[in-house]
Amino acid sequence: MHQISDDGLLAANATFYDALERGDFESMKRTWAHDGDVMCAHPGRVSVWGWPDVSESWRLIFESGGNPQIIITDERVVRRGSMGWVTVTENLISGGHTGAASAVNLFEYRDDHWMMVGHHAGAVIA
Amino acid sequence: MHQISDDGLLAANATFYDALERGDFESMKRTWAHDGDVMCAHPGRVSVWGWPDVSESWRLIFESGGNPQIIITDERVVRRGSMGWVTVTENLISGGHTGAASAVNLFEYRDDHWMMVGHHAGAVIA
Repeated sequence: MHQISDDGLLAANATFYDALERGDFESMKRTWAHDGDVMCAHPGRVSVWGWPDVSESWRLIFESGGNPQIIITDERVVRRGSMGWVTVTENLISGGHTGAASAVNLFEYRDDHWMMVGHHAGAVIA
Repeated sequence: MHQISDDGLLAANATFYDALERGDFESMKRTWAHDGDVMCAHPGRVSVWGWPDVSESWRLIFESGGNPQIIITDERVVRRGSMGWVTVTENLISGGHTGAASAVNLFEYRDDHWMMVGHHAGAVIA
């Protein structure tokens, strides 16, 4: 689906943020590799590890509702063979409140897809 | 120096934290690939990009002094060919104060070395 190129990698990254913004758990699940060694760090928290725990962390976030609008800036993409990562600033807008996080999203190309294998986000202090 | 294995990758990660803990800028410089696309996010800040800016960010941190003691926990390593990453919790102790950060360190194996190509850290909220 997403070709092995910067454009394909950026498209996979956009799909991730679309799922996040819409609070779409099924789409989020399709974004990730369901591996034992995927990792995810939400702002302010320690990393969780392995698909069961990563998946559960997203389920709880989506369940809590109040999906913010997310404006991505400072997007930078790096590709090394079948691995790639995208660094972004996530600008969050929710109910008149704003905030920002810095994130890096790690992807692996396999079976003609860029699959997310890592997401690491930290709050930016204004 | 560091063989292409999990052990070699963990050794490179340990060298990074040794340089950080000692505030050793020369050792920190040797840890990194001096590429235009390396990235680094310090806790609370947006990412910086490219070796000149990444290098400068470390110089300023080391210049400010007060190097904390760093106890690494929750260390997890993933390797995909010549790419690898290590997720950790950084437990920081400085002058009786403690804090923690979640980090992912991204390395690329080339010229018989694991070179750091990314460091992304975010504060953990107690």
